[in-house]
Amino acid sequence: MLIKNVILPNKKRANVYIEGNVISSINEEAKKDDWVIDGKGKLLMPAFYNTHTHLSMTVFRGLGEDMWLKDWLEKIIWPMEKNINGEYVYWGAIIGALELIHSGIAAIADMYFYMEEVARVLELLGLRGVLGTTIFDFPSPEAETPEEMLKIAEKFAKKYRDHELIKPSVAPHAPYTCSPETLMKAKELAEKYNILLQIHLAETRWEVYEIQKRYGKRPVKLLEDIGFLGENVLAAHSVWLTKAEIKTLARYKVKVAHNPVSNLKLASGGVMPFPEMLEYGVLVTLGTDGVASNNNFDMFEEMKIMAIAQKNHRWNPTIAKAEEVFKVATENGAKALGFKAGRVEEGYLADLMLIDLDKPHLKPFYDPITLAVYSMRASDVDGLIVNGNPIMLNRKVLVSDEQKLLEKAEKKAFELYEKSIKDQS
Amino acid sequence: MLIKNVILPNKKRANVYIEGNVISSINEEAKKDDWVIDGKGKLLMPAFYNTHTHLSMTVFRGLGEDMWLKDWLEKIIWPMEKNINGEYVYWGAIIGALELIHSGIAAIADMYFYMEEVARVLELLGLRGVLGTTIFDFPSPEAETPEEMLKIAEKFAKKYRDHELIKPSVAPHAPYTCSPETLMKAKELAEKYNILLQIHLAETRWEVYEIQKRYGKRPVKLLEDIGFLGENVLAAHSVWLTKAEIKTLARYKVKVAHNPVSNLKLASGGVMPFPEMLEYGVLVTLGTDGVASNNNFDMFEEMKIMAIAQKNHRWNPTIAKAEEVFKVATENGAKALGFKAGRVEEGYLADLMLIDLDKPHLKPFYDPITLAVYSMRASDVDGLIVNGNPIMLNRKVLVSDEQKLLEKAEKKAFELYEKSIKDQS
Repeated sequence: MLIKNVILPNKKRANVYIEGNVISSINEEAKKDDWVIDGKGKLLMPAFYNTHTHLSMTVFRGLGEDMWLKDWLEKIIWPMEKNINGEYVYWGAIIGALELIHSGIAAIADMYFYMEEVARVLELLGLRGVLGTTIFDFPSPEAETPEEMLKIAEKFAKKYRDHELIKPSVAPHAPYTCSPETLMKAKELAEKYNILLQIHLAETRWEVYEIQKRYGKRPVKLLEDIGFLGENVLAAHSVWLTKAEIKTLARYKVKVAHNPVSNLKLASGGVMPFPEMLEYGVLVTLGTDGVASNNNFDMFEEMKIMAIAQKNHRWNPTIAKAEEVFKVATENGAKALGFKAGRVEEGYLADLMLIDLDKPHLKPFYDPITLAVYSMRASDVDGLIVNGNPIMLNRKVLVSDEQKLLEKAEKKAFELYEKSIKDQS
Repeated sequence: MLIKNVILPNKKRANVYIEGNVISSINEEAKKDDWVIDGKGKLLMPAFYNTHTHLSMTVFRGLGEDMWLKDWLEKIIWPMEKNINGEYVYWGAIIGALELIHSGIAAIADMYFYMEEVARVLELLGLRGVLGTTIFDFPSPEAETPEEMLKIAEKFAKKYRDHELIKPSVAPHAPYTCSPETLMKAKELAEKYNILLQIHLAETRWEVYEIQKRYGKRPVKLLEDIGFLGENVLAAHSVWLTKAEIKTLARYKVKVAHNPVSNLKLASGGVMPFPEMLEYGVLVTLGTDGVASNNNFDMFEEMKIMAIAQKNHRWNPTIAKAEEVFKVATENGAKALGFKAGRVEEGYLADLMLIDLDKPHLKPFYDPITLAVYSMRASDVDGLIVNGNPIMLNRKVLVSDEQKLLEKAEKKAFELYEKSIKDQS
């Protein structure tokens, strides 16, 4: 496949050849080009790696806004999740995955329930996912006990361990919802299959105090002491940390998934300590979280809000520079999930997006990366290639009938709502 | 004009009739419908009133990012503004105004130089503007002294006082760049023509200390003591205020233009005290500021960032609710600029936007206002009607040849850059 006469992130024009699922050469003659994409007037950039999502929660988009967490859970999420099943997870993931495509996102790290349904959706639409069944010490929509949840996770790990697009992972929910025993069983399972461990960590100040109360130590220290930390850990949020804790995360090579929009919207207070993460060498990646706390999968918006929230919080406009933030959202994410992707370079996976530059809000066109972080939005994505396959070109989804899927999915979302919320009131 | 079978902000379907420049009836039979717009699958909302911009600074988009203010001014803005003239102001405004159209913005309150050129652009494209020549005590690209600047402002006020789309205003830059004498001359001029006074106020903590140092009092007290405050004052930013100052603003019926993205991006620190503004009854409106500190005119993004920055700063997810924020960006803005607009209701000005709902990130479709604040982006705007005139339909700009204008404008921007920055280095 040849992408002809396209603009690269360094602003140079080039012909980009893809062989199989890899960028084989830039500007050199290729042996053959079966499929030619005209890149004229378009910018070719690495696609996004969105490292913390709950894709199927897209069925909840726009419900329960501007509420305290307790009300949100009790009035919206729990009644809805009482009725959630594999079918609703599938259709929620359909809406979410179609949005991912339009937003230039090649891969997600996702945790929820009925993850085989999420895997089916990503396979259908040709996207990558690192997927983990959520595990905690109380009943989930899918299972009664953490033991059952671990069994579901192991079954999933076996089924998907050699899949090209889907990677299994193990996803204990958080230190305050999982006992040390559950956390360590999850870790053992992850090590058995050599897969990623996803966890929510230090998201709120409440969590820090709660863990301190229960265990007499802060969350990172607890995880260190029980032996949970390691380089296969991907810790979402990671907001309420001391410098000593950040150093600990760096020492164990823990990866962080930063979720600025969700943190601000849920009013967790505080802002993730990005300058210290950089200083001590923690690999920071970027995630949108679920749309129920965002409410979209726009990684351009996420990059911008990350950059400006950092600047404002530290009274310093020179931190969280466009180049750094762009790397966080692409290359760092790919690295954390174990893919050689996130750069438009020979030998890297062909997970790429095309941007239509022909719009007033992208003029004048000086620096592509600055423009990407501060001016672009998801809708500027014109094409998406994942694992060498064109998923969307000229804004048309190629891999499925988008219209039909969307209509059916919205009907299913309304059905769940009727069952769960309307019938109560 | 009839907009047929469209969805209203209250989620009901309706036929909306426009006679002249006013919404004449909703759902009742109209006498005639010369122009029928098919509203099927589309949401009709009031267009945005963007109450603080520097439209022509769009020529600087993406230059000088992630820098301290001093570097940004000395390395980028001042060298560029040394070469700015009416022609560059015109072409900068062209890029900006085309973006306004695509972003659903009907009106701006704008301050810069060579404002007749900005007025020409808004007239050409059919948008509203409340425009004021920036006045301060040092030379501007347009004039040497505040007296000359006031003369330019008066000439503009005379020329445009009865214009349908353009309202003149007087725009003394800020308390730290204008002497009390200049401020009061500006006020006298505004009162003579009964027009708005635009000013930057309490944007940074530095400003508060600087004014305290010079005058022994905080900025709002200074403006009160010299007699500047009044209901024709539109104060941009208004971040660093005490409760007593907010009460003073409320007492004088001063209007505030809140600019959350610009404040965060420039790392001014602090977050505008919205709950207190509401409590004491200050009319808060929303503005993007210039793209040089944003870097776009996306009022959807501005609403979302306003809402989530408020929530995070006050550790309270129930403040800056979607309904409140939407009103700030529409109805409040119109009120501050002196237009009866900002609602889809009979008797209101036909300043309206159409939203294409047929997109995955807008599904499921529960509440239009929640969706607008937390999930939409400027690119969801499918049509714009200003003063009863269709400016854009089905994403096609009707009032001019967009492509031709954009190309020429970008060339002019590069020309200014070559002259100002490249030649230096």
